[in-house]
Amino acid sequence: MTSLLIKEVVHKDKIVDVYIENGFIQQIHEKINKPAGEIMECHGRKAILPAFYNGHTHAAMTLLRGYADDLPLFEWLDDYIWPAEAAFTPKHIEAGARLACLEMIRSGTVFFNDMYWNPPVVIKAATDMGMRICTGPIALDAYESGSRLSQQKDREDFLQEMKSYSDLFIPSLNAHSIYSVLPETLDTIHSILEKYDLYFHIHLSETQKEVEDCLKTHGCRPVEYLDKIGLLTPKTIAAHGIHLTDRERKILERKSVTLVHMPVSNMKLSNGSFDIPAAEKAGLQVILGTDGASSNNCLDMMGEMKTASLLAKHAWEDVTVLPAEKVFHMATRAGAEAFGLHAGVIEVGYLADAILVDLKNPRLVPGYHLVSDMVYSADSSCIDSVICNGRFLMKNKKIEGEEAILEEVAKWKISDSKPHRYKDN
Amino acid sequence: MTSLLIKEVVHKDKIVDVYIENGFIQQIHEKINKPAGEIMECHGRKAILPAFYNGHTHAAMTLLRGYADDLPLFEWLDDYIWPAEAAFTPKHIEAGARLACLEMIRSGTVFFNDMYWNPPVVIKAATDMGMRICTGPIALDAYESGSRLSQQKDREDFLQEMKSYSDLFIPSLNAHSIYSVLPETLDTIHSILEKYDLYFHIHLSETQKEVEDCLKTHGCRPVEYLDKIGLLTPKTIAAHGIHLTDRERKILERKSVTLVHMPVSNMKLSNGSFDIPAAEKAGLQVILGTDGASSNNCLDMMGEMKTASLLAKHAWEDVTVLPAEKVFHMATRAGAEAFGLHAGVIEVGYLADAILVDLKNPRLVPGYHLVSDMVYSADSSCIDSVICNGRFLMKNKKIEGEEAILEEVAKWKISDSKPHRYKDN
Repeated sequence: MTSLLIKEVVHKDKIVDVYIENGFIQQIHEKINKPAGEIMECHGRKAILPAFYNGHTHAAMTLLRGYADDLPLFEWLDDYIWPAEAAFTPKHIEAGARLACLEMIRSGTVFFNDMYWNPPVVIKAATDMGMRICTGPIALDAYESGSRLSQQKDREDFLQEMKSYSDLFIPSLNAHSIYSVLPETLDTIHSILEKYDLYFHIHLSETQKEVEDCLKTHGCRPVEYLDKIGLLTPKTIAAHGIHLTDRERKILERKSVTLVHMPVSNMKLSNGSFDIPAAEKAGLQVILGTDGASSNNCLDMMGEMKTASLLAKHAWEDVTVLPAEKVFHMATRAGAEAFGLHAGVIEVGYLADAILVDLKNPRLVPGYHLVSDMVYSADSSCIDSVICNGRFLMKNKKIEGEEAILEEVAKWKISDSKPHRYKDN
Repeated sequence: MTSLLIKEVVHKDKIVDVYIENGFIQQIHEKINKPAGEIMECHGRKAILPAFYNGHTHAAMTLLRGYADDLPLFEWLDDYIWPAEAAFTPKHIEAGARLACLEMIRSGTVFFNDMYWNPPVVIKAATDMGMRICTGPIALDAYESGSRLSQQKDREDFLQEMKSYSDLFIPSLNAHSIYSVLPETLDTIHSILEKYDLYFHIHLSETQKEVEDCLKTHGCRPVEYLDKIGLLTPKTIAAHGIHLTDRERKILERKSVTLVHMPVSNMKLSNGSFDIPAAEKAGLQVILGTDGASSNNCLDMMGEMKTASLLAKHAWEDVTVLPAEKVFHMATRAGAEAFGLHAGVIEVGYLADAILVDLKNPRLVPGYHLVSDMVYSADSSCIDSVICNGRFLMKNKKIEGEEAILEEVAKWKISDSKPHRYKDN
């Protein structure tokens, strides 16, 4: 049994003590006098807030941060990203995933929903560092003959092994997209999901081309296609969802699908704008994600909150769209609940996932409204400590083992081909 | 004579020593053995880069950060911002300006071009903290009778006193906008500018309404109007410039006017998008600014660089628009040169304005391309030290007097009227 007592911390404009035991918030009170395994004194200088839940990542791609930017799509993929990824070993994936975890913890994130090769390595990286993760094997078998069988083997191994992983792990099956996965594989995935009650994670309607190809191939739009084959459920997490009709939104709402909005990636790759007002009107469940470091290039949910709100105001010419409280909810409680976590809010009975922010950081001063400050002004320099499942992942800005992870990353940095260089300034 | 020797610092992918004397970069070499007033050891773990130049601020409004957000324009101004500002004393302005300086230094900015009431207080705040500033009295006299005379008096006092301020100060005259300043005042300003060779700073074509009103009142568009009265010169700094025609861009280019692009403010206030491709085509001089904390809500040039690039890619559906090197140039060298500063680049003979960034910060790792990482991934947590005019403003994350400034801000925080509250989450 582990316990943690946080003393004199600001919570909803009051100074309180917070007592955490066995991973849950057990008590919030003006003054708690109780022995605890660990005590954190805040002297009223720090506030406690929910941590962030990152709805869509390719964590290991952090190893390619800044490797190639500002290039046309196919030059970017063909000449840089794909050749680099093709050379990845499990060691590369482990180093990239651990670097991603470092960065996410420093910016207050305790959970990510990941889509990448070799999930056991990523699961170990995340849970070793104390983070929650949802992931599983990826299907991407429409391009290479033989990949279907080997990926089916990965899925079978995963189903055998998934129970042996940490309690911080939530299993899923990933399908890259409707255009990159064989229809028979989607059927197989459907059967496994039904049998094992797992999450299902897919890129959906990210580009107009995907929609047009689907209409040509399947005679219907992407959401309709997934619905037909039974892949839309309350455990479906659909990343992007930019090019949707109202009819598709209605289907997604009826099936209680969760959509992941990623404004930074959508802007950086010129993919268009997720339609916030239409999603709200349809009553859709929307959470936030950062996407991978090749299209962002950081995994910072605070940047994502600000950009989400700015883009919505810009795109719909309405300054009242996506106010701070709403986008903060998307990044915290809505993100947790989408994955069945009773978390994302600082209240008794909830999972003890939290951040402590430094109220003396100039970006949070004068301090009229903490949530507005977190969305529109904060950055990772404001985050002092991060707690997940009642344990410190970062305490007073220190993360255990950080230096060793950075040394490992230096070893696995891609060096055999030249990264893209800009002309001199 | 002050001197500073920075040892083993990364500069353009090499480890070098940098020697600074009398405010200038005097030597950059593999190994410098010279006595120096101050020595900074970097052990190859830090890189030296140009600092940022913030092209447009209302620094003291940092005192209203988070005071009111996500509200319709007139409710925001009438019910919150204007009543709060009306109650500002010089003490409020000083506290707000010092808070702004803290925040700017922490995010690597050494200069800002400010428009606000009571410039002597703001000049003192900035230069006391070692920052460069361009500012001067503001004209905003079309709404209140009597204000013209008192503001003329401010200008006269300023012309008397401006020579007594710090060398870090660059004098200007501010006109709020063409619609809020009397035509006869703009003429007076024109005469003063000609006589004293000062910078001129104005909000220009921020909204469509401004353009329409100008067409009605003056029979021409805002740029044409300013051109007619002689207010477009190489020392004119025009903030926003969103609603421009190609003809207006040609005039601005011919007169060598500098435009300040503020993507975050433009998005947050739904004002539209500065047209980067058109500005590039016209050969315009464009720099970056944050605007004030009421419409951003931070004064962070790194956030501004990233948002500028993202917005350009999104708005013009082209991933190659505004690449990292270009936007970094706008925030550094172009910003410095617009104000006549021989700075914004780390080379011998340039002013010693610089930042030291922590290469072990996970956001800058693996480290393929530092400029791309600074634009797309960095935040203020990456900035270890800030140098302006050869002096440390922040050293190893410490700013002298920070705690005292925060205490002063707490005293002058607005409390007599309630800040805008969101409904509970």
